[in-house]
Formats: sequence, structure tokens, C-alpha cells
Amino acid sequence: MGVHDRVASSFSPSGVLTLTSDLGSAGPYVGVMQGVMLSRHPAARIVHLHHQIEVHWPAEAGFWLERAFSFFPVGTVHVAAVESGLGTDRPGLVVTLDGHAFVGPDNGLLAPLAERDGALTYLVTAATLRTLGVPSVAPTFRGRDVYAPIGGALAAGTLDPTEVGPRTTDWAPSLLDRPEPKGAEVVGGVVVSIDAFGNLITNIEAALVERLAPAEVVIGGRNLPVARRYEEKPPGELLAVVNGFGVVEVARAQQSAADLLGVGRGAPVRVRRRLARP
Amino acid sequence: MGVHDRVASSFSPSGVLTLTSDLGSAGPYVGVMQGVMLSRHPAARIVHLHHQIEVHWPAEAGFWLERAFSFFPVGTVHVAAVESGLGTDRPGLVVTLDGHAFVGPDNGLLAPLAERDGALTYLVTAATLRTLGVPSVAPTFRGRDVYAPIGGALAAGTLDPTEVGPRTTDWAPSLLDRPEPKGAEVVGGVVVSIDAFGNLITNIEAALVERLAPAEVVIGGRNLPVARRYEEKPPGELLAVVNGFGVVEVARAQQSAADLLGVGRGAPVRVRRRLARP
Amino acid sequence: MGVHDRVASSFSPSGVLTLTSDLGSAGPYVGVMQGVMLSRHPAARIVHLHHQIEVHWPAEAGFWLERAFSFFPVGTVHVAAVESGLGTDRPGLVVTLDGHAFVGPDNGLLAPLAERDGALTYLVTAATLRTLGVPSVAPTFRGRDVYAPIGGALAAGTLDPTEVGPRTTDWAPSLLDRPEPKGAEVVGGVVVSIDAFGNLITNIEAALVERLAPAEVVIGGRNLPVARRYEEKPPGELLAVVNGFGVVEVARAQQSAADLLGVGRGAPVRVRRRLARP
Repeated sequence: MGVHDRVASSFSPSGVLTLTSDLGSAGPYVGVMQGVMLSRHPAARIVHLHHQIEVHWPAEAGFWLERAFSFFPVGTVHVAAVESGLGTDRPGLVVTLDGHAFVGPDNGLLAPLAERDGALTYLVTAATLRTLGVPSVAPTFRGRDVYAPIGGALAAGTLDPTEVGPRTTDWAPSLLDRPEPKGAEVVGGVVVSIDAFGNLITNIEAALVERLAPAEVVIGGRNLPVARRYEEKPPGELLAVVNGFGVVEVARAQQSAADLLGVGRGAPVRVRRRLARP
Repeated sequence: MGVHDRVASSFSPSGVLTLTSDLGSAGPYVGVMQGVMLSRHPAARIVHLHHQIEVHWPAEAGFWLERAFSFFPVGTVHVAAVESGLGTDRPGLVVTLDGHAFVGPDNGLLAPLAERDGALTYLVTAATLRTLGVPSVAPTFRGRDVYAPIGGALAAGTLDPTEVGPRTTDWAPSLLDRPEPKGAEVVGGVVVSIDAFGNLITNIEAALVERLAPAEVVIGGRNLPVARRYEEKPPGELLAVVNGFGVVEVARAQQSAADLLGVGRGAPVRVRRRLARP
Repeated sequence: MGVHDRVASSFSPSGVLTLTSDLGSAGPYVGVMQGVMLSRHPAARIVHLHHQIEVHWPAEAGFWLERAFSFFPVGTVHVAAVESGLGTDRPGLVVTLDGHAFVGPDNGLLAPLAERDGALTYLVTAATLRTLGVPSVAPTFRGRDVYAPIGGALAAGTLDPTEVGPRTTDWAPSLLDRPEPKGAEVVGGVVVSIDAFGNLITNIEAALVERLAPAEVVIGGRNLPVARRYEEKPPGELLAVVNGFGVVEVARAQQSAADLLGVGRGAPVRVRRRLARP
């Protein structure tokens, strides 16, 4: 799975943390996670990456983390708390990649990062949690009780990724397959995320689309040409673009594509070469 | 009320502040409060604890502060701005407890903290506000004009809690009574908060429930056994647990308990010993 | 336009940034902008001023920035990302005013600041973007790719406003006229913003209202006396006040004025001298 055994962990904390969850804003949950981080590292600068992740849909969190982490300083610790609802005995994982560290559950959320070349993955152990003063019994709020203290300690430099626990190559896979070509002319993916504007963000990357130019997107019974950029469209018109994160997105000028198409997270999307039509 | 006269204020600021309000996110109000804090202490790290407090329901803010403050570093200043809508002549209170400081209105919000053993409470005076350069006339936005500058000055260490004004033991009581046993077999409380998932959070603490085991929760005409933890329940099923903040919570697997039960903040809740049923 | 040629830029960064956008909270967009800022200045303290600005309504962002910036420390960099939807060839503007710096699009958003006495305005050039390592091609997400790196560099002190590009006095005007007296007895303005409570915030400033005392506000077919402060009103009753930001606001006690009046952003508002009624 792309793990290079001889690459030592070279994580050096910048003091910046990001936080991703399905906790929303109507509760003290996210704030308390920050309190735990600041208790470990009072100088931490904490950024909210996303707290409207669909509940029990860790794939969305992993998707955004993979596409967003490189915009943060090298040395950033990314904490993600989205449970699958299926339970697990493992308390969590830490992944290092390109000088960043990632902390979260072993439910597929971190798989897109753990699979990358150069990534190293460590299994959080009960012994580590005891050392950090975290109760090893199954907590009701692991974001606060496991991921936040580990993230804070990593950001403070009081815990190195290599001290978290044993290296592993055996992590839960992502709930989503990476899109791959299906034959020469088609690639299939899914809607991973829907933003505040009702834009549908897919997991189909630009490189897969470019080979198919001129391409069209098939979603919810519609065929949409892939535009090179957001052009001026009349309000209400659907369009498909490769967005600022390098993936195919279906949008609707000044309105919600999600509402019009009636599709949600997990909905299938295909990109294919556009046929000349008579 | 548990005030120890000989305990000196030993508040030493960490530079961390929390902010709790009913101001929501669709306005610049919370941002401007942070600007005022940073103007007093440019190195401040500010955490949003909760900004979806029910308007004119300061009891919810005090409830979360009491349960959340200990997750923050000693030396944190907690600023809470939720007005009761009833008006008051007093500009505000500062409470110190366990190395933390709390700033807010004298409308019952801070009573759960002021009542605790070891807490010290100070009355903000017009003279203090003048010293801080804050207008002493009745402001339209006390969060920005009174609590934020006091909080920022406390976090900067340029104002000590003992300099805020005279000690007092005469503060407005909480709008909520603390739950107490009603006879040997029943304890009564209320729904204090509803989170983004529709979970109903009550003010009944674990210690009161443990004596009644096996216990059940009576709410909205239902009797729900108190589970030891969130188990796997079929979607839509109600359950009661002692949550990660040590109080009874009524939840509904993957759905909203608030919507199903049709109960809101202030609704009565009882916990009683579960009877053997024939 | 009030530009003083001999006033040198005297911007000295405090390390504080504010962020204003129409990006909402259901996406990683705002978080990623912070990542870019922190990559330029890892010690930055970043405050969210407002992320619920109406999409394609930059006037609302400029309005709040003009009224909020002075609550932040001198040396704050204010980054605003609200596109007009009309496109522009110019990559952006930087304005300095009263020791603060402002970064955003040249679509009228920054005009209320650029027009102020003592303001200096600089045109962002492609050469500056290249120097900063920012692609000069038209980006799909200028908040992240243009305004955030410039803001971060200004906050870090690695870029001075005078180095951004040439001084200019030719910026796009605001989409909103400043209210002015219409005859001796009337002043006309518009609703610029609606907050989470449904309060309607207008661009009519206190000074214009005071001359008309006793004044009344005409909006949505109603005449409302201008009260000196929020008094205790029965729930549901409309009132008009000069709010904590010094402008006329129409509110409804414990309910939404916007819902009752059915008016939105851009709706006309008049303030006139109240006539003695028989």
C-alpha cells in the first residue's frame, strides 16, 4: 500500500491544527475539542476545516482532507472526528504524509492519506492513551477524549508520531473506491460532498477527465458538457467544471444543483467522451 | 453560597478565551467581539464554545459553561453574552473558579459557577468600565461593549479579577433549579439544551441516576431505560444515556429525538427506578 | 476621492487578520483560505467577521467592514472574498486606512473604505502575484488563490501595501449609494443586511436621523417611530432603532422583522420627520 519502510517520520510541528467533524455548530462539542488541544498546546492555532460532514459518512472527511491538507503549513496536525456508526475496537490511527500528521478513527476516513506514497501509519495503543492521561475505556466522545489530546500533543511536540504506537499497513479501507477508467471512454465515480450552495462535488479527478476531452458528465439522467471554467450562465442552468480542488463538480448558476437533480452523497456519476451528435 | 472569604483570587491568565452567545453566525457580532478582545490582548487564542444558545435563555449558556470549562487550560477567560431580555441595572459579573475566570451578565447565567465551592464573584462597576475606556452609559450591545473588553483585559493580565469591583454574594439566581431527589425513587429535571442532532440534553447528573439503577427516564409521555452507552440501535429508536458531559441525554438513533417527542428547552424530565413489570 | 497624495503608507501589521465571505460553513473553503494565510504567516490570529454574506452582494461585505474594522487592533489585515458574478480583469485591490489594510476584489466591495479620507488604494498586479508564487492565470477560487496569500503576506510583514502595485484612484464604485438627504425632511437608504434574528440593517447613519428628530422610518408600507433604544416591547411588535453600529435597524421583539415585512436586501427605506398627527 505504498508504505516505504526506510522513510523515517520527519514530522516537525508548526503549531497549527485543523479540525474536521460532523458535529455542526449547535453544541459545545467542537469548542471543547479545542479546549483539550489548547490544554496540551496553549499556543496552538486551530482552523476549522469542515464541521458539516454528513453524519456517519467518514469518506467525505477523508476526501476533503486529502484535497485540502497541502494548503496548510508543513507541520500541521489534522484531526478528524467522524465515526462510521459501526463501532471498532481500535482507538485510532495517526498518519504522516509530506510533513503533515493526521489523527482520526480507523474506519476508512484516513485511508486516502495512508495509501499515498511516502505515508506512514501508526496504530494508537491503549498504552499511549494511558501515558497521555486519557482513559482507555471506550469513551462516548472519542473526538474529545482520544483524537484531540493526541492531536494537541503532536502539535506541541510532546508526542512524536513514531511514539503513538506500532507501524501498521492494515487499516480499514475507504468506503469509496477511487474512480478508475471503465474501458477507454468512460470513468465512474460518485458525489462525495454537497456544499452550502448545493454544488455536487465528485471524486473524479481532472487527469481522468482530460483524456476524454471533449467530455460530458452523466448524472441524475442529465448529460452536461464539462466546461473549462465557470462561465456566465443564465440563472438556473446546470454546468459541470473541474473545480478549484481539481475534481469534477456539478453546479447550477445561482441556484442549487442538488435540489434540481435530487441526488445526494453517494450518487453515481460518469464522465465519458462526448459523442458528436447528429 | 460557598464563598470562601480567605481564598485570594489566584487567577493567572493563559491567554486563552472562550466565547458563548446567542448571536448565531449570520452577522458580524461575534467577530467584532473578538476584535475587541484582540485589541486588549493581540496574542489571544479565542475559542467559540457555543453561539446557538437559545435567545433569552441564559440558563443554557451557564449549563454548558459549567460542564465545559474544565476542558480548557487553567487561566482561561470564559466570556458569555446571553441577555435575559428583562433588563438589569448591573453592568455584569466576574467569577473566578478553579483558576478560570468567567465574565457575563448578572441574570443567572453565571450562578452555576458562582455557587460552586471556592468560587469568588465580583461586581463590575461603572468606575472599572471608565478605567477601561468603556462608556458607562447603557450600551445596546453589552457583549461587545462590556464583557469583551473586560475579558480581553483579564486575558492580557492588565486587569485582575480583584480589580473588577467589590466582592459580592448577591447575584441573580439561575432560572433553573438544580435537580434534586423527590423522595427516594425519583429525581426531576428539565431539558436544558438541544443539539444539532436533535438530542435532548438534561440537567440531571450521573450521580443522581446511579442511585436509582436500574433507572428509566420519563419524558414526553415515554419511559426510556437508561442505557450504559450508545449501543447499536435501529434507526429511529429512542434511547437515554449518561452522555460525555455526565448528564442524562435522550437521543434517537440517526434521527432527531426533539422532533419525535415534540419537546423543547425547559420541558420536564424525570428519572426513576425502573419497576419490574409483569 | 479623498486620496491624500502625501500620506505615506504607514501600515504596520499586528498579525491579526479578519475574513469575510459568502462561503457559508458547509464546505472546506474558508478553512483552506486560513491554511493559505497561515502558510504565509504561521503566527496569524484569524477572526471570522462574516461568512453568510449574500452571494454576489459585495455591498453587504463592504458595509460591515466599514462599520467593524475599527473594533480590531491597528495593524489588522481584513480579507474579503465576495465576487459580483460579473467578472473583472483586475486581480484585486489593497486599501490602507487608519493603520488597517483591506484586500479584496475590485467590484465595489472596498469602495466604502477607499473613498474615506486618508485611504490609499493599490492595484494588485500580475507581477506581484508571480513574486508571491501565485498563478497569474484566472483562478476559480480567488479568495484562496489571490486574496488569502496577499493577506497572509501583509500580515507577516513580508509584503508592504506599497509593494502590491501602483496607486490608483480608479476603482469600481459601490453598488450602493451613500444615503443623502432628499430635501430638508427626508433621507433615503436601503436594507443592506439581514441578521440571524431577521433584523433589517440599513445604511442610514445616526447623524442623518438626528437632524430629523422626532423621526420615523418608512419601510414595507409601515411607519415606525425611531426609538432611542431597544425598550421592552410585546413579542411581535416592530421597532426602529439606531443600533450598536450607528445605523438605523428595524427589528421585531423576539421575532423576525424580515419575515413579517417581507422585504429583503436592497429594499428601500426612508427616514423622515415625524408629523404631528391629529
